[in-house]
Amino acid sequence: MKPIEQLISVAQGHVPADVVLKNAQVFNVFTGKFDRGDVAVVGGYIAGIGQYEGQIEIDMTGKFITPGFIDGHVHMESSMVSPREFAKVVVAMGTTTLIVDPHEIANVVGEKGIEYVLDVAEELPVHIFIMLPSCVPATNLETSGANLTVQELTRFINHSRVLGLGELMDFPGVLSRDKDILAKIRLAEGKLIDGHGPGLLGKRLTAYIAAGIGSDHECVTPEEAIERVRQGMHIMLREGSAAKNLLNLLPMVNGYTARRCMFATDDRHPADLINQGHINHMVRMSIDAGIELATVLQMATINPATYFNLKDIGAIAPGYYADLLVFDDLISWVPTQVYKQGQIVATKGKSVFNVLKTNDKKIRNTMHLGNISSGQLKIKASSRVARVIGLVPHQLITASLEIEVPVINGEFVSDRDNDILKLAVFERHHGTGNVGVGLVKGLGMSVGAIASTVAHDSHNVVVIGSDDDDMIRAVQEVEKMQGGIAIVNEGKVLGTLALPLAGLMSEEDIYAVHTKLTDLHNIVRGLGVNPNYDPFMTLAFMSLPVIPSLKLTDKGLVDVNKFAVVPVSV
Amino acid sequence: MKPIEQLISVAQGHVPADVVLKNAQVFNVFTGKFDRGDVAVVGGYIAGIGQYEGQIEIDMTGKFITPGFIDGHVHMESSMVSPREFAKVVVAMGTTTLIVDPHEIANVVGEKGIEYVLDVAEELPVHIFIMLPSCVPATNLETSGANLTVQELTRFINHSRVLGLGELMDFPGVLSRDKDILAKIRLAEGKLIDGHGPGLLGKRLTAYIAAGIGSDHECVTPEEAIERVRQGMHIMLREGSAAKNLLNLLPMVNGYTARRCMFATDDRHPADLINQGHINHMVRMSIDAGIELATVLQMATINPATYFNLKDIGAIAPGYYADLLVFDDLISWVPTQVYKQGQIVATKGKSVFNVLKTNDKKIRNTMHLGNISSGQLKIKASSRVARVIGLVPHQLITASLEIEVPVINGEFVSDRDNDILKLAVFERHHGTGNVGVGLVKGLGMSVGAIASTVAHDSHNVVVIGSDDDDMIRAVQEVEKMQGGIAIVNEGKVLGTLALPLAGLMSEEDIYAVHTKLTDLHNIVRGLGVNPNYDPFMTLAFMSLPVIPSLKLTDKGLVDVNKFAVVPVSV
Repeated sequence: MKPIEQLISVAQGHVPADVVLKNAQVFNVFTGKFDRGDVAVVGGYIAGIGQYEGQIEIDMTGKFITPGFIDGHVHMESSMVSPREFAKVVVAMGTTTLIVDPHEIANVVGEKGIEYVLDVAEELPVHIFIMLPSCVPATNLETSGANLTVQELTRFINHSRVLGLGELMDFPGVLSRDKDILAKIRLAEGKLIDGHGPGLLGKRLTAYIAAGIGSDHECVTPEEAIERVRQGMHIMLREGSAAKNLLNLLPMVNGYTARRCMFATDDRHPADLINQGHINHMVRMSIDAGIELATVLQMATINPATYFNLKDIGAIAPGYYADLLVFDDLISWVPTQVYKQGQIVATKGKSVFNVLKTNDKKIRNTMHLGNISSGQLKIKASSRVARVIGLVPHQLITASLEIEVPVINGEFVSDRDNDILKLAVFERHHGTGNVGVGLVKGLGMSVGAIASTVAHDSHNVVVIGSDDDDMIRAVQEVEKMQGGIAIVNEGKVLGTLALPLAGLMSEEDIYAVHTKLTDLHNIVRGLGVNPNYDPFMTLAFMSLPVIPSLKLTDKGLVDVNKFAVVPVSV
Repeated sequence: MKPIEQLISVAQGHVPADVVLKNAQVFNVFTGKFDRGDVAVVGGYIAGIGQYEGQIEIDMTGKFITPGFIDGHVHMESSMVSPREFAKVVVAMGTTTLIVDPHEIANVVGEKGIEYVLDVAEELPVHIFIMLPSCVPATNLETSGANLTVQELTRFINHSRVLGLGELMDFPGVLSRDKDILAKIRLAEGKLIDGHGPGLLGKRLTAYIAAGIGSDHECVTPEEAIERVRQGMHIMLREGSAAKNLLNLLPMVNGYTARRCMFATDDRHPADLINQGHINHMVRMSIDAGIELATVLQMATINPATYFNLKDIGAIAPGYYADLLVFDDLISWVPTQVYKQGQIVATKGKSVFNVLKTNDKKIRNTMHLGNISSGQLKIKASSRVARVIGLVPHQLITASLEIEVPVINGEFVSDRDNDILKLAVFERHHGTGNVGVGLVKGLGMSVGAIASTVAHDSHNVVVIGSDDDDMIRAVQEVEKMQGGIAIVNEGKVLGTLALPLAGLMSEEDIYAVHTKLTDLHNIVRGLGVNPNYDPFMTLAFMSLPVIPSLKLTDKGLVDVNKFAVVPVSV
């Protein structure tokens, strides 16, 4: 509860503040200017900006203070570390509010994943608000760990941290007025619904917006983005790891459209978080690209707060949370100090908070594979020509190839000379024994196998390799770790990364995970993987049947354009 | 409920719209531009803007369409007509959304007044949202018809039409952390609280804002307004009848502050509504004053909608209410057509809707005076010098004069030669028999008496005159009408305006009321009233003890600066 009594007393100068940051250059999001003054904080809130006295006074002469940054849409799981470790990194970079869509974890453990994030939110020194995963499972062409219907979501919709429905990816469902999708939209009436409409334009876009979808973070061109603003959407300019759109989109920002724009990272991997940063990286990029400083800071603060109706967040003004970033200059954008609700939580790019580990029982022991054997990897050939997934450098889309592939004993086999490997997806949530098997061309891996439980969106076990036994061994290794990544060659485990939290996240800190991932990258290069590919990201998206053209799930090879399972044999 | 299914179908062009406004220049509040296109409407909502077919198609070639206008803060009672008649006028001028603070009616009938406005809101073709009256009674120096404590307000706070707490006039109560005021602020937590802080600046302003007050409509100078924006407030630029601030404030509007600005009328009397208009008048004035058209239209539409979190109001975009104004040009700002939720409600400046009269039993029969007699008008003189209310031309403030006044039989009497009249306030809600009597200098009325039940904020009966019997006769006449205005001279009733709805509003239409008011003005000029005064407005504010310096309530003469009742005799 807001300490209104204290705020009134401190604001009037009748009582000293808890903390006063003295003589700072304080950014005002409403006027777009820096004002020189003291920021008085009491009970975690800003009482006033002006001349104040406090029990603790910190000289900020020459320093700049801005409101904490807001990430408008993020899947924390993509960092491959626990929310606690994720918070440590992003808070140190100045992000004090996260709008989280726990889509990945919910695909594994359903409601328990949402509960876990709500638990975490109570403990971490970063504001966490939740947009409920709207599309779990993402499609009916795969087996996810849970099915979140409107019934399950109803439990959460009125939680104070829940702001609405997360990215409504099933835009075809909206456009065809799918009963279940519309029920979810109705559930969120009066709240917010985030969109996900890559490439959607014309009257289909209009219909998607008319249904109540309020934002999009999938824009690739300024034209797409402006068209969405024109029709009333808010735009989340995204700079993730898989998708980097910020620089392409910045030309859309002008005097009128700016107030409908905010930043989002969506997915950011350890290397990018460590080497570039988080929202502060987007602030830096935008300023370097020539966008006015004040506009950029508004996009990082008050604009998302306004969209998400977060009244006490996004500005340095009386009654707002004392979420404050202190900068020595306006160049590096790595804060010297970060305050969350008036408490110092980071200094000089390092978090300084220590919180207990949230009880994570709900998201452990998620591997339920049943018996597996190399027999499951056989691909029946009824012809000599196979449908083969063709990798495309630096892209998540794949080509759908039709190629002659060697057949032995009536089965397609991998073909090292032509860079054709086997790919398999083992259902791992319910022990159904479902296995999808297919062929992939282009990775360049000449020997060994890689298995991973980071496999969008259902996060089954995906495995690639040229040798069936190595593939099975890699899956077993992943199973043993209760999720993660394993690389095997000639029966020998060359490297692993354990991700025991839902099979998505490590228990270690981001630097340890980054180091291990770097090691794994070195190992796969030794197996011959083409330097044009990040094989872990490639694997992670190989099972996502909403990105064209040919993908593989536990239900089999999916022709994404037909949105149907097809045989390997042509 | 929003017809999502239909919207999706119509937006995609699969099904014709109900109505399509063809080939219009459609104002886009998000881009600040006019786009040429068709506006497709289904089920009262906008399905899309582009090329559409409809069951009804209306050619709008050469015409301009904007969203309906929003009044950010209005006391409908000040129009002196019923909400239905008020709606007829303002809807015809393009106002399709009213943020109503039923402060006046609540001072007379309390909760029943709020209930009445909620009833009315269901029936009228204008969106009505309510900010709950926060200060009933306005002070403890007067007797109002009701006392709205946090207990009474709790009943209403979660009503879907209630957006929060109306103008929190008792800023001294906020600053002194008055228990009851803070309880009301807590009640509205998570909702909106409108402010009313005339002249408030410095740390007192900061404290008021820190307490959670989100807007102010009492700014007089651009500096005051910018200081409020700087601290996070939204500004309602006001152009009422009693207070006209728009032109003075417009210099505060710039590229950064504009999004925190909106229009409000607060109080508008019949003459101004008829002769000038409503929000459209403020649009016209602002454009004439050189503010960019797009900025002005945003202030009249999306800005208040954003502040009040009205998601489907304030823009012409898919999924928004089809509240549309059609203009032949961008000069007169009187709409050729007004659509509210897709229905035509006005054409060429005249409303065309017909709705049944709301049951108004709750707000009738509000006169409970008890016996009155001229004996109650005696003013005991314990000296020859009296405290006299000194009128100031064109101002609501008064001077506190100390003058020698004739004494007869130990009582002060009126003094025609020196323009000193008697003023009395009869409590009329509970039959307490309370009467406050005092003296006024400056009105210039040489004979007769004027009585009125429009007497802020408690709306007791206020009466002024030189002859005690005429004063009593005027009060009796008002009582007979169950509220209103009466003018009496030498025992003869010269003119009346009946205001039987809470003693504040007529049953007639605004033109009839305007005609009668004009007649009354002519009558009072015949009694010698100084042309520098509108005597009805003068009377209306003579009993408001929050405006300095000397006022009169049913409890007696109030020294506003001391905030205490004082004797007439010095």
